[in-house]
Amino acid sequence: MSRSDPRIVGTRRGFLAGAAGAAGLVAAAAAPSAQAHRTAGETGRAGVLPFHGPHQRGIAEDQQAHVQFAVFDVSAETRADLAGLLRAWTDVAALLAAGLPVGEGPTDPAKPVSDSGEAVDLPAGRLTLTFGLGPSLFEADGKDRFGLKARRPAAFVDLPKFPGDQLAPARTGGDLCVQACADDPQTAFHAIRQLARAADGAASLRWIQSGFVSGAAPGKSPRNLMGFKDGSINVKTSDPSEMARHVWVGAEAEPWMQGGTYMVARPTRIALEHWDRMKLAFQEQTIGRVKATGAPIGGKHESDPLDLDAVDADGNPVIAENAHVRLAAPQTNEGTQILRRSYSYDNGVSFIAERWPPWRQGLELDAGLLFICFQRDPTAGFIRIFEKMSRFDMLNQFVTPVGGGLFAIPAGIMPGRYLAQGLIET
Amino acid sequence: MSRSDPRIVGTRRGFLAGAAGAAGLVAAAAAPSAQAHRTAGETGRAGVLPFHGPHQRGIAEDQQAHVQFAVFDVSAETRADLAGLLRAWTDVAALLAAGLPVGEGPTDPAKPVSDSGEAVDLPAGRLTLTFGLGPSLFEADGKDRFGLKARRPAAFVDLPKFPGDQLAPARTGGDLCVQACADDPQTAFHAIRQLARAADGAASLRWIQSGFVSGAAPGKSPRNLMGFKDGSINVKTSDPSEMARHVWVGAEAEPWMQGGTYMVARPTRIALEHWDRMKLAFQEQTIGRVKATGAPIGGKHESDPLDLDAVDADGNPVIAENAHVRLAAPQTNEGTQILRRSYSYDNGVSFIAERWPPWRQGLELDAGLLFICFQRDPTAGFIRIFEKMSRFDMLNQFVTPVGGGLFAIPAGIMPGRYLAQGLIET
Repeated sequence: MSRSDPRIVGTRRGFLAGAAGAAGLVAAAAAPSAQAHRTAGETGRAGVLPFHGPHQRGIAEDQQAHVQFAVFDVSAETRADLAGLLRAWTDVAALLAAGLPVGEGPTDPAKPVSDSGEAVDLPAGRLTLTFGLGPSLFEADGKDRFGLKARRPAAFVDLPKFPGDQLAPARTGGDLCVQACADDPQTAFHAIRQLARAADGAASLRWIQSGFVSGAAPGKSPRNLMGFKDGSINVKTSDPSEMARHVWVGAEAEPWMQGGTYMVARPTRIALEHWDRMKLAFQEQTIGRVKATGAPIGGKHESDPLDLDAVDADGNPVIAENAHVRLAAPQTNEGTQILRRSYSYDNGVSFIAERWPPWRQGLELDAGLLFICFQRDPTAGFIRIFEKMSRFDMLNQFVTPVGGGLFAIPAGIMPGRYLAQGLIET
Repeated sequence: MSRSDPRIVGTRRGFLAGAAGAAGLVAAAAAPSAQAHRTAGETGRAGVLPFHGPHQRGIAEDQQAHVQFAVFDVSAETRADLAGLLRAWTDVAALLAAGLPVGEGPTDPAKPVSDSGEAVDLPAGRLTLTFGLGPSLFEADGKDRFGLKARRPAAFVDLPKFPGDQLAPARTGGDLCVQACADDPQTAFHAIRQLARAADGAASLRWIQSGFVSGAAPGKSPRNLMGFKDGSINVKTSDPSEMARHVWVGAEAEPWMQGGTYMVARPTRIALEHWDRMKLAFQEQTIGRVKATGAPIGGKHESDPLDLDAVDADGNPVIAENAHVRLAAPQTNEGTQILRRSYSYDNGVSFIAERWPPWRQGLELDAGLLFICFQRDPTAGFIRIFEKMSRFDMLNQFVTPVGGGLFAIPAGIMPGRYLAQGLIET
């Protein structure tokens, strides 16, 4: 059977023709199973995290080992179709989080498969799905696409272009994002795939980045690909008052954003070969921490407080003025803290050419950090910190933001409701 | 400190100038630790698999959850420099497999870091490293680069170009390959990174592909991204006579290949969106198995024998003539079996344009299977099976080989020896 076989074409045409109704189909199919989920997911079955609640998941939860971060462009042109997509995604997400197949599972031979099936035998793997809205959903090219422009939150500003940004259009922006985190990469991949299928006809993938983090555990910082512990000073997700202060949007916003947050997600290339050629002392000065222990320079333990006033025998600061930790620290950012929840990424190799000595060109590892952070107010959070960091951080000679953006993460989804319903149904 | 800072340039120049001697340095640094490894690795420390032995690792071992498959081009021009590289890789590999840092670890602040450090706190993760030689190491562009042309094994043929192959030069071929398998992706990434560093000045990365497999366990087949169980009929790695018959090279070869094998590694793109639009019955006909259970069509259990003679009420074969399992089965390939040990891969999205109806273009998932198999004789193994499969398999409308190649995997490395020593020291 060749690719031009009319039966295949027919099948595909048929599906595509029906795609506009996919949201409805999915919603119908999902209803009983979503009910099943509420039992399974919210009564503590192993590996299943709850789906519903006042906050979206994948933010305060202990970090899972894998992420698939996917960004979609919306092709739907009416608010009703956008609502259909968000409703379908909500239904599919509830099933996925419960470790259940989408739709009826692979049972009816005469229908296109309702679930692609690669997660059938896998545990739920603490899957969380975090949905975000891009600025372009509210307004794109001066067009108020869905009549939502007036509802764009004041805090949802455009990210400025920072010094050093080298953002590739194909990996930047987008109308909707989904962060799928799980302890298994196939579980996360499967989730994004089913959401992409449910979106068919209403939205399509714009970019996607997988990532991993190894050695993360409650109270234990993982190491990123620079070999340093990452996340040593972070918002305590177990402390509701810290979360309320730094992460969750409060009464300053409309109800659909209350309990939500803002997410910055930026794939950031690390020049690993360059970094690996540095002396240990220089790496430690650059970061401001001891590589082996994670302690601040001059300290013994990772949890030692940063002493930014300490000077050596010559009167020079022990932690350099342009060290990464100094520029990131709350005490140099008027107390600002952002919740970081980043993943390393690895995209094989890519071509580089250097224009400074020693001149050379060739293939290098295309790897780095999918930097992810959450905050209540982007202007007082990431933007404030990164305005300074992007100018002065010694680390900048090794890292280059190559894409990403800022997304509004609406409040969590309560049973019977759908994602961002309070925004859509104005 | 900017990128043109003379100190940085000096450091990098210095390192590059010294790179030719890196093999020696590494070997010297590794000597005591390698000794430590032999104790740790070969006395059964948790998560550490043995390194030395008559066969290379990563072939008969239970499949780990993650792979980094890296292919290198050799820039060394003499056989002595090639030997230096293989010796350095052997020393580094022994340390990595033991879960030990390369060199002295991050201790001397005045030296470039000897180990990049991201695996410091991680368990050894059953890391295995499998090294292979590409045809171009024996002869490239008619040049006998290292005086090895006459030693190329007769069985080490060139892979033919199969119908449907769409091999991208940037992901095809290469002089040396390394398969790093581990239960943790960061462990595997770390291993390839240290080997790339040890190769600096003698070889550089040509292409690299990471992969994952979820739900594999002894006696349990994992599912690939098509949602079907993969590897249902496979060589039993626990059976030495099966391995000797189908996988390990025997007395037909020179001693350096005895106990070795041949590896085919081909990243194979799967048109997942296309596949997902098919009816379940069509997917099952294509594969020849029931999706939910993995049983042959007409059977109940995955382990049920394939009955290729069964016909339905109309006299048509129950398992179609061009079903994947029929074309792959030993009984249609004169008893040939190959040991498959494949991984799924996921490279985000890439642009596609279709030239058949419904005409369309856009981004699709760039994902598929890093097909990996091992066999004693490629001509009687993969080539025999795939000559037929590439012409008739119904699956071909969904899968496209996009790169890879055939590699000779020399015998395992015994203590005090280095990789392919018997080939190099003729």
